[in-house]
Amino acid sequence: MEDQEQKNNLTPISDLGEFKLIEELTKTFEINNDSTDLGIGDDAAILDFNKEKILVSTDMLVEGIHFDLAYTPMKHLGYKAVISNLSDIYAMNGNCTQITVSIGMSNRFTLESIEELYLGIRAACKKYNIDLVGGDTTSSNKGLIISITAIGHAKGKKVSKRSGAKLNDLIVVSGDLGSAYMGLQILKRENEVFKVNPNNQPDLSDYAYLLQRQLKPEARKDVIEFFAENDILPTSMIDISDGLSSEIIHICKSSGIGCNVYEDKIPVSEELRSACKEFKLHSTTVAMSGGEDYELLFTINQKDYEKIKNSSDLSVLGHITNDIDQVNLITKAEQVVPITSQGWKSF
Amino acid sequence: MEDQEQKNNLTPISDLGEFKLIEELTKTFEINNDSTDLGIGDDAAILDFNKEKILVSTDMLVEGIHFDLAYTPMKHLGYKAVISNLSDIYAMNGNCTQITVSIGMSNRFTLESIEELYLGIRAACKKYNIDLVGGDTTSSNKGLIISITAIGHAKGKKVSKRSGAKLNDLIVVSGDLGSAYMGLQILKRENEVFKVNPNNQPDLSDYAYLLQRQLKPEARKDVIEFFAENDILPTSMIDISDGLSSEIIHICKSSGIGCNVYEDKIPVSEELRSACKEFKLHSTTVAMSGGEDYELLFTINQKDYEKIKNSSDLSVLGHITNDIDQVNLITKAEQVVPITSQGWKSF
Repeated sequence: MEDQEQKNNLTPISDLGEFKLIEELTKTFEINNDSTDLGIGDDAAILDFNKEKILVSTDMLVEGIHFDLAYTPMKHLGYKAVISNLSDIYAMNGNCTQITVSIGMSNRFTLESIEELYLGIRAACKKYNIDLVGGDTTSSNKGLIISITAIGHAKGKKVSKRSGAKLNDLIVVSGDLGSAYMGLQILKRENEVFKVNPNNQPDLSDYAYLLQRQLKPEARKDVIEFFAENDILPTSMIDISDGLSSEIIHICKSSGIGCNVYEDKIPVSEELRSACKEFKLHSTTVAMSGGEDYELLFTINQKDYEKIKNSSDLSVLGHITNDIDQVNLITKAEQVVPITSQGWKSF
Repeated sequence: MEDQEQKNNLTPISDLGEFKLIEELTKTFEINNDSTDLGIGDDAAILDFNKEKILVSTDMLVEGIHFDLAYTPMKHLGYKAVISNLSDIYAMNGNCTQITVSIGMSNRFTLESIEELYLGIRAACKKYNIDLVGGDTTSSNKGLIISITAIGHAKGKKVSKRSGAKLNDLIVVSGDLGSAYMGLQILKRENEVFKVNPNNQPDLSDYAYLLQRQLKPEARKDVIEFFAENDILPTSMIDISDGLSSEIIHICKSSGIGCNVYEDKIPVSEELRSACKEFKLHSTTVAMSGGEDYELLFTINQKDYEKIKNSSDLSVLGHITNDIDQVNLITKAEQVVPITSQGWKSF
């Protein structure tokens, strides 16, 4: 293994100490935010937000649970890991400015593969203007573990929690739903084909949009900017990581209200419809339970409807009712079906 | 396995979803800091530090790399995982107020064992007045992974970085060094004995102090408070997690200076001396390379000597020189030996 790595000019991580590894991985990251006083290299990063509220979100991704390197390029993985954290900060109606990244990796990883991961992290940082200000690198007994903490800020009055939805508010979602999940199904299918016939060169061009949604999702910073430009303050907001069903239940529970969501209003892409036919899946089910869309689900006062009605990227799904725990889907056949969700259950 | 767990009234993690698990683990945590506006339960925590600088530190602990559950009780592990992060914030001369905790665990862990871990986390939060404001729980393919991010604050002018040490500054350390490492050696030895004879009941009372330093270390918040009370501003500071050698090199490199450290000034406990004799180890080596002491190593201007000279808990180790990269130990035999360190190298 080591011989092979040397033949391929790859560098075993064991050739570097921790300090050298961190230096190697982070040397191309620049500091761009005024709020970053001191980044990597001391016991803690120093941030300065003056009088704003600080937003903090964190999550952990584990190989074999959250991602499969058989069909996830390291660079995409790094990008997506950052995106999912930024999305949480945007879901508070805040701006994200810093992240810390901790990595645990087994000795099967080379420096070059981890550098690919950091190229993806760097691309996301650059696109969303985020400073990498800290982290940790360590070895693991098995596989790759990525733990990211995102830090952002917002004026106190501008923060949108999950808990503020009010009677008659409109329920709105950005973008379209379910495509990321469908992209994963296609990757899994191709991986099975590959195992049987490694020389097969699949033509995935028909699925480009679905694969992009799965492998290189974006966080909806643009929606937050749209709110600021149009003086919209969502009464509640959450990002769609586990699926529409799960997220709408979170908003209703946190806000102590119910809702009616209309099936025919749920935005799905043409590519999703087409793939659902091929996979014999119901597109509404995929859109509601799929997850990993990183779209924003939010509620607004009806008086703000005028401000969003011309946005082709925002869909009004339904409205808030005062029937506590009545979280309903109104189907195309006008049946009322309770929306249920186990949330995320990976154990 | 499952049958046995049920017989013992233990709850497999798989019986709970993620949301229920988080609720179960965090329900006894209270919010005590004014700077915590909103803790667990939304996309991000909301913090408010008004005009102070924010300090952020993070690290990742992996089972089999950083800890061995054969001789580390889960409760102690949780406590120590928090302590090591608080220590980083104190090492900036800041106060720590919030943490996030992410846990990855394989299916061999029961709810009760993870609750033990959180009891330790809670005990540390309570003692140091820290609010748990977020985190993530997920499954892992192997073992336990703990990733903690600590958030603190300080007045800008009060922050002590690694990089501020100046010519003729005194080098000072809190507490004593090496005992945590020695405690680990004792635990490892007893674990080997246990493997051969599981019925052996060891008498570890002679090693109580060393074991406590390894299993239940404390972070030196009291030293930070002492600085504030006595109007001391360290010119540079770092916490001792990897060992005195490694940390003094960090300070010298970051500050662009050199130093002389005197062997006979390095504080070691009587228990360490005694155990070193038993293990045929050199106590200076253990004190300099041991690590996990979580003491504070700092430099002060000589004019501040009067303020610390009566503290039995602070030891002046030597002084800063302007010989860049001359990081020297002056031995008891008055030999000058360059201090070297690989830092931490677990790969």
